[in-house]
Amino acid sequence: MNIITVSREFGSGGRELGKRVADLLGYDYYDSEIISAIAQNSGLDPEYVETTLDNHGWQYFPISFGGTMHSVNYIDASRIEMLVQQKKVIEQIAALGKNCVIIGRNADAILKEYKPFSIFVCADREAKIARCRARAREDEKLTDRELVRKMKEIDKARARTRDFLTGSEWGKCDSYHLTVNTSDWDIKALAAAVCAFAEKWFESNA
Amino acid sequence: MNIITVSREFGSGGRELGKRVADLLGYDYYDSEIISAIAQNSGLDPEYVETTLDNHGWQYFPISFGGTMHSVNYIDASRIEMLVQQKKVIEQIAALGKNCVIIGRNADAILKEYKPFSIFVCADREAKIARCRARAREDEKLTDRELVRKMKEIDKARARTRDFLTGSEWGKCDSYHLTVNTSDWDIKALAAAVCAFAEKWFESNA
Repeated sequence: MNIITVSREFGSGGRELGKRVADLLGYDYYDSEIISAIAQNSGLDPEYVETTLDNHGWQYFPISFGGTMHSVNYIDASRIEMLVQQKKVIEQIAALGKNCVIIGRNADAILKEYKPFSIFVCADREAKIARCRARAREDEKLTDRELVRKMKEIDKARARTRDFLTGSEWGKCDSYHLTVNTSDWDIKALAAAVCAFAEKWFESNA
Repeated sequence: MNIITVSREFGSGGRELGKRVADLLGYDYYDSEIISAIAQNSGLDPEYVETTLDNHGWQYFPISFGGTMHSVNYIDASRIEMLVQQKKVIEQIAALGKNCVIIGRNADAILKEYKPFSIFVCADREAKIARCRARAREDEKLTDRELVRKMKEIDKARARTRDFLTGSEWGKCDSYHLTVNTSDWDIKALAAAVCAFAEKWFESNA
C-alpha cells in the first residue's frame, strides 16, 4: 500500500496538488472526508469539528496561567479529544490497505509505520496572495496586509499543532521527503512531476 | 538550454546527488571546475580561492566596528572581488549554451534570467553525521558535537553569502523549486527521482 501525505502552507495550492496527484495515480483521496467521519462518530456538527481542529479558537483566547485558564482548558480539552478521534480515523483509513493521498492533519507522523511518502507544499508570498484572491470570495474584503496576517495565523496554528503532536517541525525541509514550491508552476504540470518523483520513491522502498 | 542548480546543507549529499543527476541526464557538471577557472584567471592558488570564497576566514575574525576593522575589511574586499569573478565564470558557463548542473555558489540567483531549475538538498542531523563520518577521514577526529558545530558554521557561511548576494533566504523552501531530503534515500535512486521531476519542469517551461 502506498500512502502520500500532503502538508502545506495556507494558499500554496497544496490541496489542489494533492487531489490532482490522487487522480493521476488512481489513489483514494482524503481531506474533508476525515472531518465528516469525526462528526458522524461523535454526533457533532462538522463545522464545529473543523473549527475546533483548526485551532482557530486559540487565537482569540490569550493563553495565560491567570484568570482565563478555565476557558482555555475547556477549548483545549475538547480539541485534544477531537485530535484523538482524528488520529483514530486516519488509522482506520490506513487499515483499509488501499493506496491513498491524505491532506494535512499530520497524517505523515500518525502513519509513520506505514512509511508514507511525505510532501510539504509552499509558495512565495505573492503567489499565495494571488491564489487566495482567485479562490475565496470572502478574502476579497481583506487588504493584502490582512490576508497575509490570516495566512500567517493559520500556518502558525498548523505549526503549533504539529509541534504539539509530533515533535517534528512544521515546514522544515528535513521533516518531509519532498518540499515543492508551487510559485512558478501550473499545478497540473507540477502534479505530474510529483507523481513521477513519488513513483521512484515507492519503487525504491518496495 | 537546461540548467539545474544544486544548493545544499553540508553533509546532505547534495554534491553526489548533483553529479549523479548530471550523469543520468548527460549534462555537463560544474563544481570545483569553477574554483579552477577563477584560480587560472587570477593567477591565485586554487586552495586560497576556495577558502576565501567559502568564507571560512570570517569565523576567526570577530566582525566588530572597533579595532579589528582593518583585517575584516581586507578579507571582505578580497572575498568580494572573488565573488565577482565567480559570478563572471558562472555567466560564462551559461553562455556556452549547454545543459548543465552547477553545484552551489548561488548560481540559481546569478543565472535567474535563464530560468534554471533550482534544488535545495537537506538531511536530518543523524543522516548528515553518518555521511560525514563515512566520507571524510579528517572528521574522524571530531566528536559528534564538534562535527555538528562544523556543519552549522559552514551552513551559516553559505546562508550569509546568499543573503548578501541575492536577498533570498538560504534553505527556505520558497527560495527553490524543489527541496529534497536525502535522509531516507539511496542517493542513486533519489537522483533518478530528481531527474524525473526536473524533466517535467523543463517540459512545462519549454
